[in-house]
Amino acid sequence: MTGEPEPRPAGWLAVVGLGPGDPNWLLPEARDVISRATDVVGYQTYLDMLPPELRQSPRLHGSDNGAELGRARHALALASSGQRVVVVSSGDPGVFAMASAVFEAQSAADAPADWQAIDVHVVPGVTAALATAARVGAPLGHDWCCISLSDNLKPWSIVERWLVGALDADFVLALYNPVSRHRPTRLADAFALIRARRAASTPIVLGRDVGRPGESVRVVPLSEVDLDQCDMRTIIIVGSSTTRFGRGGQSGQRVFTPRWYPSSL
Amino acid sequence: MTGEPEPRPAGWLAVVGLGPGDPNWLLPEARDVISRATDVVGYQTYLDMLPPELRQSPRLHGSDNGAELGRARHALALASSGQRVVVVSSGDPGVFAMASAVFEAQSAADAPADWQAIDVHVVPGVTAALATAARVGAPLGHDWCCISLSDNLKPWSIVERWLVGALDADFVLALYNPVSRHRPTRLADAFALIRARRAASTPIVLGRDVGRPGESVRVVPLSEVDLDQCDMRTIIIVGSSTTRFGRGGQSGQRVFTPRWYPSSL
Repeated sequence: MTGEPEPRPAGWLAVVGLGPGDPNWLLPEARDVISRATDVVGYQTYLDMLPPELRQSPRLHGSDNGAELGRARHALALASSGQRVVVVSSGDPGVFAMASAVFEAQSAADAPADWQAIDVHVVPGVTAALATAARVGAPLGHDWCCISLSDNLKPWSIVERWLVGALDADFVLALYNPVSRHRPTRLADAFALIRARRAASTPIVLGRDVGRPGESVRVVPLSEVDLDQCDMRTIIIVGSSTTRFGRGGQSGQRVFTPRWYPSSL
Repeated sequence: MTGEPEPRPAGWLAVVGLGPGDPNWLLPEARDVISRATDVVGYQTYLDMLPPELRQSPRLHGSDNGAELGRARHALALASSGQRVVVVSSGDPGVFAMASAVFEAQSAADAPADWQAIDVHVVPGVTAALATAARVGAPLGHDWCCISLSDNLKPWSIVERWLVGALDADFVLALYNPVSRHRPTRLADAFALIRARRAASTPIVLGRDVGRPGESVRVVPLSEVDLDQCDMRTIIIVGSSTTRFGRGGQSGQRVFTPRWYPSSL
């Protein structure tokens, strides 16, 4: 075999959801994959969410929020050089998170050929809408949708089109990325559309840092929503015409959407 | 204290998601709560999904599919009599599953007062849409929705209204309960609406028994979908106008929806 190059070690790349943050909501597969990685790439806040025992051995590559495509390219380059690489997201990595960025980078016209050979593995997770819903009952019990209010990667007119379509079709809405420093008035714009299309008594759920230290969950009718209580770490669930406040429990924070739907409203 | 009744032991009720079935996708909290239960109530198929060590100690109350409200009432009655009760669903219990049925039963006008005192706890799980998406890439990377095609609890005209609303707003669609013996032609009706509103090249994902023995996942363009391959255990993901086939990996089954959206299409 003289003169032949050393075979390059087989690298791999997994995109892994950490769930909301509570280790009790971390899938065993996520834990296993991270424990076998040589390198973990992610937004620094999510690296800080890793249980201590998963932070010991791999190299951690933390970066600022945003710049998802750069992070994805970094991970693909590491994997193609033979490293065992995990990209972490909070929640589910396929929902407004890193998985799309990795596939965008891998499928780009100018992507290196050895990136395309990587069989990216995705480990799902509990996305924030499901975690927030669980805290208050079952608001997602009938047809529902996930909408990101971020207009970083699309014009606001497109976000409005989605909101109006979902409201008019009477979906329950789970709103991600509701506000940021760069667009402080957008959430008020969104709620103007919501108030025009939902009764004042519609249950609204505001979940902030659900599954993390300092969690807070509020349930209020639409008429009493205080948008100043929402920030980028808040998930907002907007009920449909059939979503109801429940009567059970001690918290007084029960909301559910029945499985049935009347033939006419 | 003579003459006073024995204090009744404190019962509790938790509605727990098992995820798709693979124990590697079962949350630690779900495992913990089930291990502390005296009684586990559920559709027999889901009881059969429990890891063996979780089936040893509690009494298992299996029942047929359907009859969710009766199962919910049974669980509430057991908890109010002092038992520690878990109701299991596959996936996430709040998504087309048992959590809504439990809150419907608890909030019913004729529900016993002691049912309403029960502080029902919900443990989330990986719902089938997230599991199926993870197997093929990131089809849920932009705004998406969950729609149940079952018309058991609502007229088919309502299902159509939801489908048309979601298609016209250009959501990615995750379709649950696509077909049953009682409504063999409904899926064809749904796909007639889809074909009229999506390009023939739109990626479609058919995931059957994802995360269970015998799993199969197919990715095809809309023009090549064979509805005879779908049954009640299939989840169907319908791409939006921006959903694409990816180029990476060995499986040739890559689908993702980019995070961005053009200002006009």
